[in-house]
Amino acid sequence: MVSNKSQRRREKNLREALRIKSKHKTYASNSHSLYVTGENTNRRIRTTMASNGDDEVIKLVEGPAGYVLEDVPHLSDYIHDLTTYPNPLQANPAYSVVRQYFVHEDDTVQEKIVVHMDSPRGTHFRRAGPRQKVYFKPADVRACIVTCGGLCPGLNTVIREIVCGLHFMYGVTEVIGVDCGFRGFYSKNTVSLTPKTVSDIHKRGGTILGTSRGGHDTSKIVDNIQDREINQVYIIGGDGTQKGANAIYKEIRRRGLKVAVAGIPKTIDNDIPVIDKSFGFDTAVEEAQRAINAAHVEATSVENGIGLVKLMGRYSGFIAMYATLASRDVDCCLIPESPFYLEGKGGLFEFIAKRLRENGHMVIVIAEGAGQDLVAESIEQQDASGNKLLKDVGLWMSLKIKEHFAKQSVMDITLKYIDPTYMIRAIPANASDNVYSTLLAQSAVHGAMAGYTGFVSGLVNGRHTYIPFNRITERQNKVVITDRMWARMLSSTNQPSFMNSP
Amino acid sequence: MVSNKSQRRREKNLREALRIKSKHKTYASNSHSLYVTGENTNRRIRTTMASNGDDEVIKLVEGPAGYVLEDVPHLSDYIHDLTTYPNPLQANPAYSVVRQYFVHEDDTVQEKIVVHMDSPRGTHFRRAGPRQKVYFKPADVRACIVTCGGLCPGLNTVIREIVCGLHFMYGVTEVIGVDCGFRGFYSKNTVSLTPKTVSDIHKRGGTILGTSRGGHDTSKIVDNIQDREINQVYIIGGDGTQKGANAIYKEIRRRGLKVAVAGIPKTIDNDIPVIDKSFGFDTAVEEAQRAINAAHVEATSVENGIGLVKLMGRYSGFIAMYATLASRDVDCCLIPESPFYLEGKGGLFEFIAKRLRENGHMVIVIAEGAGQDLVAESIEQQDASGNKLLKDVGLWMSLKIKEHFAKQSVMDITLKYIDPTYMIRAIPANASDNVYSTLLAQSAVHGAMAGYTGFVSGLVNGRHTYIPFNRITERQNKVVITDRMWARMLSSTNQPSFMNSP
Amino acid sequence: MVSNKSQRRREKNLREALRIKSKHKTYASNSHSLYVTGENTNRRIRTTMASNGDDEVIKLVEGPAGYVLEDVPHLSDYIHDLTTYPNPLQANPAYSVVRQYFVHEDDTVQEKIVVHMDSPRGTHFRRAGPRQKVYFKPADVRACIVTCGGLCPGLNTVIREIVCGLHFMYGVTEVIGVDCGFRGFYSKNTVSLTPKTVSDIHKRGGTILGTSRGGHDTSKIVDNIQDREINQVYIIGGDGTQKGANAIYKEIRRRGLKVAVAGIPKTIDNDIPVIDKSFGFDTAVEEAQRAINAAHVEATSVENGIGLVKLMGRYSGFIAMYATLASRDVDCCLIPESPFYLEGKGGLFEFIAKRLRENGHMVIVIAEGAGQDLVAESIEQQDASGNKLLKDVGLWMSLKIKEHFAKQSVMDITLKYIDPTYMIRAIPANASDNVYSTLLAQSAVHGAMAGYTGFVSGLVNGRHTYIPFNRITERQNKVVITDRMWARMLSSTNQPSFMNSP
Amino acid sequence: MVSNKSQRRREKNLREALRIKSKHKTYASNSHSLYVTGENTNRRIRTTMASNGDDEVIKLVEGPAGYVLEDVPHLSDYIHDLTTYPNPLQANPAYSVVRQYFVHEDDTVQEKIVVHMDSPRGTHFRRAGPRQKVYFKPADVRACIVTCGGLCPGLNTVIREIVCGLHFMYGVTEVIGVDCGFRGFYSKNTVSLTPKTVSDIHKRGGTILGTSRGGHDTSKIVDNIQDREINQVYIIGGDGTQKGANAIYKEIRRRGLKVAVAGIPKTIDNDIPVIDKSFGFDTAVEEAQRAINAAHVEATSVENGIGLVKLMGRYSGFIAMYATLASRDVDCCLIPESPFYLEGKGGLFEFIAKRLRENGHMVIVIAEGAGQDLVAESIEQQDASGNKLLKDVGLWMSLKIKEHFAKQSVMDITLKYIDPTYMIRAIPANASDNVYSTLLAQSAVHGAMAGYTGFVSGLVNGRHTYIPFNRITERQNKVVITDRMWARMLSSTNQPSFMNSP
Repeated sequence: MVSNKSQRRREKNLREALRIKSKHKTYASNSHSLYVTGENTNRRIRTTMASNGDDEVIKLVEGPAGYVLEDVPHLSDYIHDLTTYPNPLQANPAYSVVRQYFVHEDDTVQEKIVVHMDSPRGTHFRRAGPRQKVYFKPADVRACIVTCGGLCPGLNTVIREIVCGLHFMYGVTEVIGVDCGFRGFYSKNTVSLTPKTVSDIHKRGGTILGTSRGGHDTSKIVDNIQDREINQVYIIGGDGTQKGANAIYKEIRRRGLKVAVAGIPKTIDNDIPVIDKSFGFDTAVEEAQRAINAAHVEATSVENGIGLVKLMGRYSGFIAMYATLASRDVDCCLIPESPFYLEGKGGLFEFIAKRLRENGHMVIVIAEGAGQDLVAESIEQQDASGNKLLKDVGLWMSLKIKEHFAKQSVMDITLKYIDPTYMIRAIPANASDNVYSTLLAQSAVHGAMAGYTGFVSGLVNGRHTYIPFNRITERQNKVVITDRMWARMLSSTNQPSFMNSP
Repeated sequence: MVSNKSQRRREKNLREALRIKSKHKTYASNSHSLYVTGENTNRRIRTTMASNGDDEVIKLVEGPAGYVLEDVPHLSDYIHDLTTYPNPLQANPAYSVVRQYFVHEDDTVQEKIVVHMDSPRGTHFRRAGPRQKVYFKPADVRACIVTCGGLCPGLNTVIREIVCGLHFMYGVTEVIGVDCGFRGFYSKNTVSLTPKTVSDIHKRGGTILGTSRGGHDTSKIVDNIQDREINQVYIIGGDGTQKGANAIYKEIRRRGLKVAVAGIPKTIDNDIPVIDKSFGFDTAVEEAQRAINAAHVEATSVENGIGLVKLMGRYSGFIAMYATLASRDVDCCLIPESPFYLEGKGGLFEFIAKRLRENGHMVIVIAEGAGQDLVAESIEQQDASGNKLLKDVGLWMSLKIKEHFAKQSVMDITLKYIDPTYMIRAIPANASDNVYSTLLAQSAVHGAMAGYTGFVSGLVNGRHTYIPFNRITERQNKVVITDRMWARMLSSTNQPSFMNSP
Repeated sequence: MVSNKSQRRREKNLREALRIKSKHKTYASNSHSLYVTGENTNRRIRTTMASNGDDEVIKLVEGPAGYVLEDVPHLSDYIHDLTTYPNPLQANPAYSVVRQYFVHEDDTVQEKIVVHMDSPRGTHFRRAGPRQKVYFKPADVRACIVTCGGLCPGLNTVIREIVCGLHFMYGVTEVIGVDCGFRGFYSKNTVSLTPKTVSDIHKRGGTILGTSRGGHDTSKIVDNIQDREINQVYIIGGDGTQKGANAIYKEIRRRGLKVAVAGIPKTIDNDIPVIDKSFGFDTAVEEAQRAINAAHVEATSVENGIGLVKLMGRYSGFIAMYATLASRDVDCCLIPESPFYLEGKGGLFEFIAKRLRENGHMVIVIAEGAGQDLVAESIEQQDASGNKLLKDVGLWMSLKIKEHFAKQSVMDITLKYIDPTYMIRAIPANASDNVYSTLLAQSAVHGAMAGYTGFVSGLVNGRHTYIPFNRITERQNKVVITDRMWARMLSSTNQPSFMNSP
Repeated sequence: MVSNKSQRRREKNLREALRIKSKHKTYASNSHSLYVTGENTNRRIRTTMASNGDDEVIKLVEGPAGYVLEDVPHLSDYIHDLTTYPNPLQANPAYSVVRQYFVHEDDTVQEKIVVHMDSPRGTHFRRAGPRQKVYFKPADVRACIVTCGGLCPGLNTVIREIVCGLHFMYGVTEVIGVDCGFRGFYSKNTVSLTPKTVSDIHKRGGTILGTSRGGHDTSKIVDNIQDREINQVYIIGGDGTQKGANAIYKEIRRRGLKVAVAGIPKTIDNDIPVIDKSFGFDTAVEEAQRAINAAHVEATSVENGIGLVKLMGRYSGFIAMYATLASRDVDCCLIPESPFYLEGKGGLFEFIAKRLRENGHMVIVIAEGAGQDLVAESIEQQDASGNKLLKDVGLWMSLKIKEHFAKQSVMDITLKYIDPTYMIRAIPANASDNVYSTLLAQSAVHGAMAGYTGFVSGLVNGRHTYIPFNRITERQNKVVITDRMWARMLSSTNQPSFMNSP
């Protein structure tokens, strides 16, 4: 889902970063300099830690044939002489039968796997999973979990499996839940989480911890982490949240604290890059079918019926696109990435009229972030309270279509508008997302126990990996409308390309 | 679900109608007079046909101990010397094993069954079902089906079972579907309906015939019925539609045509009186649970979360009330029958604040017709296009609540508004409604074949009956807020009675 | 659903019972005599308490025009001078708006409502609901709940609503749950039930109390009731359980204890007489559709495919019949009430071959109790452990059909057998059953508080009533195969009548 | 999901095959020799076509750094001078906006992507998708589709999308469906498939074409393909079916026909190797949750309750393993890959007794192919008809557990056995599988149009590829019980490892 162009740009930048290097092994500081942490010329390996002006430390390992590992930070990057312990899983009977259970330290996952015979090997990520040695004694661990942003199917599964993973795999008993998002760190009491209290929560939608937007105050949060003697922080949220998590990680590193910060990327819109897809996305696409089916029934049961469904996707139209592909009843799919216009030749109104004349009915799916330029343009008086509602593109679009056809008096249409947003967000994860959320949570736990920090746990090409924060927050994942998936969508709806904008 | 008061008023009126009678057997005409059709003094039976000023003929039979039968018209009321035929079901092997399969001509169903030892026996309706004799030769029957008004789960089942019932029970092969409601009679082509074409339609939502509102033009429709030589008309629709059906029946009677007119009452809101409940209602209440569950999850996942769900019910709050009773997660249920106010002591805002302080979250269910006075009052400028949206009480209410709490700045709330209307209407009937719709359709077929006309097929106290049109169109079924069901609802939500209006 | 014959026999017996009477008001004893408790000759009312040889006391009230009330026992029948208290609901704000909230003491519900003009009025039952006066002081109430027999959707709702009804309507705080059925009274610890502990249980299938079969030991149970100072006993179970409840009630009456015994009839098979239908039945019929749909898909996806579905119904085929009616994909429905045979002319094998030749596929629904005579006959050697499985009519039938067609070598068939029993029983109640279960529980609570005992709470013609134990345990409700519902089923499948048994 | 060992063995074999090569470019014949089709020494590329003794031609391309492409056959491998045509998609407006829509001819997908810095590059597959040039003129194409083996969610979607893909993307109008599996080629009429006839089939379970097992007669089938002038054959089925497809491809190549043979691998058990997962698998795991939930409710509602669920998986336990992971209510998961025993120390009975003592209930999931050795051993007399049933491991296991605990008389258990197999197989695909099935079908269409043959369309590491038949039929995909996924499963159930077999 990544355009070739942005991929190439990114790899160019990496190579530039690698070019800047020195022979000295140093540690990251706030000096904004760049420094190599080692080089093994025999194997052509160069390890680089590059700090950009924004206090960001990028950790790169270069190998033969264009191999690059974008590594994640480790507590030992800034704390000397940390004690390690044997992984308690070695004593676990469940793992005694599994040969090679522990992840080999050299295991990495290739990012670009559609290759030519002589392509450079490109970027890799560190493989997730349990390590032979851990950097925390289980009895010393005091972990906390926080959920931020909007609801997403699977949140409770992730919470459950962090608690159960820490408890059953590592013997960690102190896990606390932060109430209602980032601001809960400093303004709320925490709750104790045990395998018993989380036992059934994966069957419920929402988040038992509560969530909120904003409320990120790095100092207060890190103060609180210190005061409560927390040493593992699990942060579940979208790109804004993970930027916050990155700030927390950097402040912790600055203070030299032995606290691992692990993110689990959450976005029902699937707008986080690098990873294959976000947890809850499958469930959302599945549940969206109900709304599309209903719109289809409504549209086909009247003359010139139009069913209009708004689906989630503020900046990325993945849910709309996949729901359209899965349904096959949709005539037009509008997403933020693909501009459109209403009036005139090649416009939406023309297409609606055409499709109604041909079939007598029509189903339109619109992502919530589609057509925001048109919406903004048409709302002039900001004072009237009714106009607030028109910022909702679904309501706005339903009015516009009705007004157009009323004005034209060419055909009487009947439009039914469906907004299933909260009915989709609030359901529990389906089986596939339950397994996925479980493995994401377990990976995060393995990573934090192994001393990694400043990382998110993410699926890359079907493999669980650790990805540095900056890689998933530097841009948003978007539907690439010059890629084949969008072409498949277009060919299934036969909608106009809206390229002849007037 | 009928208040005692309206029940008593109605029975008083009936008795008055009965008092006006004569000894002559005559036929209904447009003379607006009243006439008895017979009296058997031995059995204290008086049969009355009373025509009110509105061309309405009311057919009453009075018996001992206050027994009254509100009978339905019959083709023989206005056509002499009709030939009868033995019911083809007599030869059907499926019925050969069933003793007493045919309904006894004296079978009637009692309307009021909560009685005292010495209560008068009150109103009865004619029991539905097959008769020994039919008034149509199957080969001569040319039936048509039309669906009007909004969608309702079970519409396709009713269509299917009229077609299959006519075909398999009576050997009728000519059934045609009228396209898109009443106006389809004169402005559209019809479609032929056979058991094969309707075979799977009960698994789909909506109506395969299409539907529309309005379009009722009695003369054009009856002209068309004559032109197409249709002699059985099945009309599926709500109270407006059944008023139209009544007009069609009266015009047919006026023209002296041998055409049976049968209605199947359809109202997802359950706002049709006399009958126990309308088909599709159960399915709607069931499906509404999804929306309420989602609202509950959204509300409990944030601080001071409010989940607001709008449910169907323009004039009657049955869906809201039953969905609230079934869910147990609702804190407040607002319906058209029970006025409420927002501001001040005992008002909704006060209750919301109280409930949020107590529980931290709240779920409100509002029927679409609730609070219409408040909505009308608050929309002053009718010109702004955004204001059109505010006529939707759900959108209006969500704005009002947000504005109130923003203004108060006492507590930050998060409100999520869900409108599942079309997702509910458009689903197929559940098993219970499928069986119910089947029996309604079969009853209508039996009735028309037996020569009854001007009736709807309806369930009264769990028994299938034929009810005269006027009885179900003269008023709407409403939640009686002085009855126990509403009290049960109130006691389950503990919401205020809104009696202390300021 | 009651045959006319058994109805007539029963009314004859009642009238005989009424004939035996005396002028003395006495109380029931174990003397096996019969005695009138009062007569008001002016109003032609006779109240009779008749004890049959089996220690059963039948309480009858006779009125004019053949009116009979089959009343339920009351604590005051055998305890003098009981104190009464005003119903606490009078102070409940929810009920302050409801006029006539309390049930009039003369309200009764008519059993037979398809009547002729001059039918006798027949049997009535006491209307359920709150009374002006209660016979328990809330603070003194110590109630217990027990669930017995198989699982049924709605069990947890009934438990929840007894607890919540007692708590919120009457202020009763002591409610205990008996663990795992009747034997839990004497062999297990009880659990305390509060509105909080039962808050979410209606969303789960099964019973939180646990259940078991058997274990009924009247003395031990009543001893335990006395020892634990329980004074309200709510017993949820099928006909066997309600016979046990009756024995408990009689022993309590014999000991002269002030303990109200209330039953809530539970039977997923709908085999309890008098009541309209049992809670959970709708949900079961709905869920059965999944299995029938799957069988239909399997059957239509191969050549000569047969889908065989076994549904619940040991003695009564209601689930099979209604599931067949709701589905419309079933070709043959076999139930315990309608005997059938396999071989020869008019037999099942002949019908299967015919239907496969016509349509290429076939769906058969069989109730678990159907064809038990055939099964018993064909299992000769009882020793082989595999034969135990053949007692399951579904497995037996699938083997028989396969063997027949393998032997015949006329056509190759593919049979897929589905037994969804436990997947149906174990789901939570749907919305309709949730509301129904709630009202049954509330009725039971109102009845016990009002001092009634020895009754079950049941829906009769859509009204909630109190019914004496003996009426629902004296016989089983069965599909009457000479009634119209079965004829409708036959006409929808066109299956043979199996009347020409060889 | 592939063990390292078999991976290494496979790569060793490939390298051996590559070592045998010659400089001559020849075409495959039945001479069983091996021949290089070209070598470009500058780029270190060697292309090899190796024919093993079994008439199998393996087409390998070797590149730098251990790069190997396991290529698929092409019509031009054995037919000279084929005409090519520009891809009609070039004119499709939907694709005009998509740059780089056509797949680059060098694009390949890497099989092993968890790599070390200096790992050899290993095996690659040809990327699926549309090519610039096609080898069929749309008007000349006559395609057929056949479905074989058991049902699987998504079958109808694959059928639909082959038809719609050929029609809308390439303008192909002649597509025929073969009835009821391989034998339909020679013993049945075909049906014509158009976008209209397949329009709604993806919403139905099963296969509209019908299916069967066996019936593979290569000569008859290829004769028929020739006679009907079919030139594209789409074969949907499991590993047995794809072996048959391979035989058809080889016979077609032997006869030198211009007929492309494309397979779409179908296996609900996920037992096909190389590909990420099979279509329908997600849906199956999702639907299995219902059965597990029911088993859990049954088990927790009685004392010592055991819920036993049999899930699909004759040779591979993927459904059982993933369903267990998704559910979190399962105490023991038994699969074919992991042997177990019943009696004695460390056996299943001991574990059951332990778990019941601890928790009072237990849920066991067993794959249909688990414990076949134990089943075979215990069925001695093959004659009794009841014993046929015992070959079903679920029925066998339920008897064994009951017998054991009855014999022991230590604890009374209640076991409920659920077999949801056909209820799972027969449902329609969920949204995720609908999208997946769509893309598989489109890939197959692109491949056949581009002249590839003897391939299946499959997802490898999230990318669509073409895989030679032999790679997916040479072995079965199995749960590797020495891998981490099984360890995760074990750690979630805490079940014994059954390693101490007595």
